[in-house]
Parts: sequence; structure tokens; C-alpha cells
Amino acid sequence: MAMQSGSVDLELRERAAKVVPGGIWGHQNADRLPAGYPQFFARGKGCRVWDVDDREYIDFMCAWGPIVLGHADLDVNRIVDEWRAMGADCLDGPGKPMVELAELLVETVPSADWALFAKNGTDATSICVTLARAETAKRKVLVARGAYHGAAMWCTPSPAGIVADDRAHLVQYDYNDEASLEAAVEAAGGDLAAILVSAFRHDHARDQEMPTRTFANAARALATRKGAALIVDDVRAGFRINIGGSWEEVGVRADLSAWSKAIANGQPLAAVTGSDRFREAAIRIFTTGSFWYSPIPMAAAVATITKLKDIDGIAHMRAMGERFRAGMLEQSARHGIGLRHTGPASMPMMLFDDDSNFEKGSLFCQTTLTAGVFLHPTHNMFISCAHQAADIDLALEATEKGFKALASRYG
Amino acid sequence: MAMQSGSVDLELRERAAKVVPGGIWGHQNADRLPAGYPQFFARGKGCRVWDVDDREYIDFMCAWGPIVLGHADLDVNRIVDEWRAMGADCLDGPGKPMVELAELLVETVPSADWALFAKNGTDATSICVTLARAETAKRKVLVARGAYHGAAMWCTPSPAGIVADDRAHLVQYDYNDEASLEAAVEAAGGDLAAILVSAFRHDHARDQEMPTRTFANAARALATRKGAALIVDDVRAGFRINIGGSWEEVGVRADLSAWSKAIANGQPLAAVTGSDRFREAAIRIFTTGSFWYSPIPMAAAVATITKLKDIDGIAHMRAMGERFRAGMLEQSARHGIGLRHTGPASMPMMLFDDDSNFEKGSLFCQTTLTAGVFLHPTHNMFISCAHQAADIDLALEATEKGFKALASRYG
Repeated sequence: MAMQSGSVDLELRERAAKVVPGGIWGHQNADRLPAGYPQFFARGKGCRVWDVDDREYIDFMCAWGPIVLGHADLDVNRIVDEWRAMGADCLDGPGKPMVELAELLVETVPSADWALFAKNGTDATSICVTLARAETAKRKVLVARGAYHGAAMWCTPSPAGIVADDRAHLVQYDYNDEASLEAAVEAAGGDLAAILVSAFRHDHARDQEMPTRTFANAARALATRKGAALIVDDVRAGFRINIGGSWEEVGVRADLSAWSKAIANGQPLAAVTGSDRFREAAIRIFTTGSFWYSPIPMAAAVATITKLKDIDGIAHMRAMGERFRAGMLEQSARHGIGLRHTGPASMPMMLFDDDSNFEKGSLFCQTTLTAGVFLHPTHNMFISCAHQAADIDLALEATEKGFKALASRYG
Repeated sequence: MAMQSGSVDLELRERAAKVVPGGIWGHQNADRLPAGYPQFFARGKGCRVWDVDDREYIDFMCAWGPIVLGHADLDVNRIVDEWRAMGADCLDGPGKPMVELAELLVETVPSADWALFAKNGTDATSICVTLARAETAKRKVLVARGAYHGAAMWCTPSPAGIVADDRAHLVQYDYNDEASLEAAVEAAGGDLAAILVSAFRHDHARDQEMPTRTFANAARALATRKGAALIVDDVRAGFRINIGGSWEEVGVRADLSAWSKAIANGQPLAAVTGSDRFREAAIRIFTTGSFWYSPIPMAAAVATITKLKDIDGIAHMRAMGERFRAGMLEQSARHGIGLRHTGPASMPMMLFDDDSNFEKGSLFCQTTLTAGVFLHPTHNMFISCAHQAADIDLALEATEKGFKALASRYG
């Protein structure tokens, strides 16, 4: 497979290698993708992105989650432009959008009696854990094995630079496994502060699982019985599965929820919502950041959530996801290449059978990339409200080429 | 003193009280200020801000640090507008500005061989600590008593929700006290990962202190001798004291530096810079965030730092700070009201003698607020490049009223 990266991308990578460790840090490192993927991007519009060499892709990553209405959405941009034109950048206190957004979240999210705002998803999950400990005066936090809850000391997946004390009070359980959850509760004894659950199981490079009702009910009942907080980490899935929070789908309400990514269609914002029980704790803890009060991302969030409701964006994303999934499963069957397309249709994980080293996934994604479709071989993908049936059908022409390449090599 | 807060501010506070714990969280909570301060702001321009009731103030907080060129700076805004118009919001990878900004920092900051970027100052300080531990394989981090390094579990000032394990490996020393630093190094034994120092002593509600050369040299020598990292927390002071980093003023170079606030004139961005020794560790740790790769704040940072250099903004802010300080000290002497105006002239702390409960500071600030000048009684303030001599002189007319009010009550 020839490298697809073009001359501007390569030049920027060479320059970056000198002044940024490894050329880049974190989840957007293209070294985590098959050879040929671009590292640097220039722009986006709707469901399309262009890399720095001006190659256009139908985007199935949506900036790894933040873009929910589509890149450079006109309605959100108009609001951002209005607030920018007013000179509402970063002031000595928050603006009116803080109140409007908190009101909108309380109105939209049935488990929310209040909201507060931050910048990173990691801020939101960390605040939830701190709030649970502050309110319960207990220490143990139950986390699912393999779940990603952010990149702070207590949760980052790499052990480098992390000390054992950072995770002294984490107890692991297996997602969707009530028995393991009960065992973890038992292990926490009288010191249980919180049960932390992802909106659904979206661990890296494995089949996704929606929460079962049995598991969700067990988590709720155990937290209630022990006086602990049930925390739903809705950072990745929030505003994509159910506008009121992902666990509305299973009829279970969290005490505390963490939100970020899609909340403001790419403007930097995170939120914590909670029930009245945790309001007083939220006054006692101290959490803040230099840019957390800027009205612009909050105004963008109001515009984003309002538009998602107005257009029933979640139903649209689900329909587009189902069209994409059905098309790929038909291709998979026709070419005799086993494919697992898991999780919510609008946030699918795509893994091939007998592909433990992801060679098939890599060849498939390199083929679709060359055909102008940006997919990910080991991470869940994201479909936005800007994806229309014609875009999905174009993408399916590329995935057809991907299956042909797989059939030719592995068939 | 009559409440100055106006009707829109009060209405928003009442609405916020229902949907945000305590009405607001963190450092921009107006409850931390004397009665009469507005909570909500509408806009800013240059060195002026307007609250939601359209009252105008000469701003001496600059959004608590981020605004260094002035609110809604035209040169930075032009760059932000250009990138926004391109559709470079939040993409599947970083853009060219990441490379340009890292190159600019390495060129500008003598201690920097590389840079990486985040959103919060707390992200940057936390990454520095993690990098120090990753590279040294040691655990202890020395921190000055009373210093603020952010609001993560390991450093937030409130004990609510924090467990002892979060701070298991912090050892305290006193800023500018070599003997206490040596004792802390001794206490860390063979397990010293880092000595963390603020750019200068800017603890809440106490006189500020610049680092002495003796202390800075001792910190550098002890870190070197023990193989530990010297971390300078330049989040608050960076790009205000010395364009190459605040400790250039005392001739000492950090191994790792944390930056944020002023770096992009209000656009949300933080940075870590480091020496080559820590480059490999920076590849091994995992740190990331959903919005960390957005090119817009990075392009804004390039514009901000370039303009600061072009106009010698630091010299201008120092000159304006010295004009303000000299004027206030003259007023203080003339009215016989003891005042301590400490720290860098462009980031002054203003504390009155015999004022342990800050009654004098409160009356003073309420008086100046009514006269259209936004000061802070217990936190260091910030002067921007947009403050001109005429603005300082207008502000001094307000402080004259403040001294008269103090002289009338306490004289």
C-alpha cells in the first residue's frame, strides 16, 4: 500500500517531529492509524473534511465525537459569530448563556437538577468522582475493566508517570456483568462512593455492547442501596443516543452525569449534571479553569442542543447509521468476509473476524481512505446530522472496494 | 454600601441559583468579591469590560489573566476569523498552527526543546508532574505551602471530595526559603521526582514575592543534583513577565514549564514545554482531550505571542503597572492609609495595612467599582497591553476616591 500522505502533511510531520514529542501526543496521533492516513487537517464542512493536501473525505470520525451537527454548522456558527462580534470572549465572569444552558440541560435531561461547566471530558468525569466522594464521605469508585474515562492521573490508560496511589480506591468490575459488579460492591465494603459506568461499552478495539437493562438496573439498585452515586460517563455518547442522556434508553437515571464532546458541536465545553442530593457537595468542592466561563461555547451548546431537538437529529443519525450498517453487512455477507458492526448504529465499531492484529481492518480502511472515506479500524466511529443518504451511499461504494480488497487477499 | 448589581445581573443570579449549585462554581464566583460586584458580563473591548447591565469598567482583572493584548484584540480576532471562515473548527487531527506554535515556543522560550498543548492550566501542571514521574521513576513532588497549581485532585485547594492518597507524594516547602526547600528534598529521600515552583509567589490574599536569585538557584541546583525535574508553573505569569519564561528574569531555566492563561489572549489553550531529557517521557505518557487539537486557539496563540514580541507588550504592561503603582503609593502616603502593592507591577496585589479581614480592601474596591474601575481586593490583578496611560490616570482618579473613603472611615 503506497503512503497516501501528501507533501504538506509530510513536511508538517517532519517539522513537528523536531518540536513536539513523537510529532504529536494523544488520541489524534496518526501513528495509531494504518499507514497512509493524514496527520494534519485543513478544514471541514458538513460531513466532509479536507486534509492539508486538500484531499476530501467523507468523515466518519467527526473530530472523534465533537461534531454532531456537521462541521462548520451554519446555525451554530451564526451564534458564535454574534457573540464574538459583541466582544464576549473571555471576561471577568460568565455571561447569560451559562444560565440559559444550565436551564436547557435541566429541562432536557430528566436526571439533572443542576449543571456546571468545564472544558474537557476528563474534567467532567473527575468532577463527578470528586462530588461523589464529597457527598458520601466514602472513597471507593467502581470502574469497568477497559473503560476509558479520560486522561487524568486517576484514569489515563498509560501507566507512565502514574503512581499506585492515584488508583488506590478504584475497584474494577466487568461491564454488563451484574455478578462482577456485586463482587466489586462487596469489595468496596463500607467505603463505596460511586459506581462509574460508560453510557455503553465502547472500549478500544473490541466489540461494543449496549448496557443491558438487567445490568443498568443492578447498577442503580446497588448504588441506591449503598448510598453511593451512580455516575454515567456520557462524554462520548451524550447527545447522540438520547437527548435526555444515554441511559434514558434503559430507563435508568444517574445521580451524576459527565458530558462533553458533542455538547457544543466542536466548541470546547464539558458539563456535569446532577441530582439535588449532590448540589451542596458541588458548592463545597473547588473546580475551575481559566476559560471555563467564556460565554461562546455555552451559547454554541444552547444552539447545538436546540437544533438537535428541532430537527430530531438523533433519529436522523440513527437512520443514517442503520443505512451504513445494513449496507456494510450486506457487502460482508456477499463477499464472505466476516464483519462485526457493533454498538449504536450512529457510533459504530467495525471489526473483522479472525483479525486479532487488525491487518484486515487496516487494509480495509486504507482502501476506503484512498476512495475518499475516513473510517477507523479500531475505534468507534461517529455519524453526524450532516450525513445524508447520498453520503452514506457514496461511502458504501468505498466500503465495497474495501471488501473487494479483503476478498482478494483473504477470500 | 448600596448593592451595585443591576437588574439583569440580579435576574440572572436568581435564575442561576436554581440550576447551578450556589449559582456558580470556581474562581469567578462574585460571592468571593465585596457586595455590589456584578456576576455576569456582556462584553469587552481593549481594557474595558461591560457587565450585563451595560455598566462599563476599566478592567484590572483581564478575565483573571487570559486577556494580555486587550479584550477582542483586532489582530488576534482577524486570525481567529480567518481560520473560522475556512471551517477549521475541530477536525480529525491538528492543523498547521500546532507546528507553527510549537516552533514559535521553542524559538521564544530558551528552556524549551519541545511543546505540547492542552486546554486548562491544570492540564499543563498535571502533565508536568506526570512527565517528571515518568522520566525519573520517582514519586515525590515538592510544592510550596499555599501555592495554587490548579484544581485537579492532586492540587485543588478545597479538601472536599479529595482523598489523602491524591496528595500522598507531595512534600511542602516555603517559597523563597532555601532551608525549607533543602529540608523537603531531604524528606523526599531517594524518591524525588520534581520541585514545582510558581513563577513568583502569588498566593491568595497575601503579599506577593518575586523569586530571589538565591532561591531560584537553589531550586535549580537541588533538582539537578537529585536528578529531579525543576517545574516552573508559569500558567498565571507566562507572557507577562518575560517572553522567554518568567524565570529568565532570575537566570534559571526549568526542565518543564506549564503555560496557559495569556498564551492566546483568551482562546482556550494550555501548553507544556520541556527539555530534551523529558521528550521520551512525553511520548510514553497518555494525555489528551477532545478539543486539544483545534487549530484556532493555536493560531490565536501564534498571533498573540508574535504581537507581544512586535510591540514589546511586556515592557508596555510593566510601564503601565509602574504608573499605576506609583500613583497608588503616592495616594496612600498622602492619605496616610498604609498600602502594600506587591509583585510584578503588571500583576499587582493590593493589600492594606491592618486589614486582616479585608474590610478596607472591600470598601476601597466597592468605591472604585462605583467609579468604573474593576479591581480585586484579595487576588493579584492583571494589566494588559490595551491599558494606556490615560486609562491608568482615569483609574487613579477612582483610587483617589477609594483612599478618600478609607481616610474618611479609618483615617
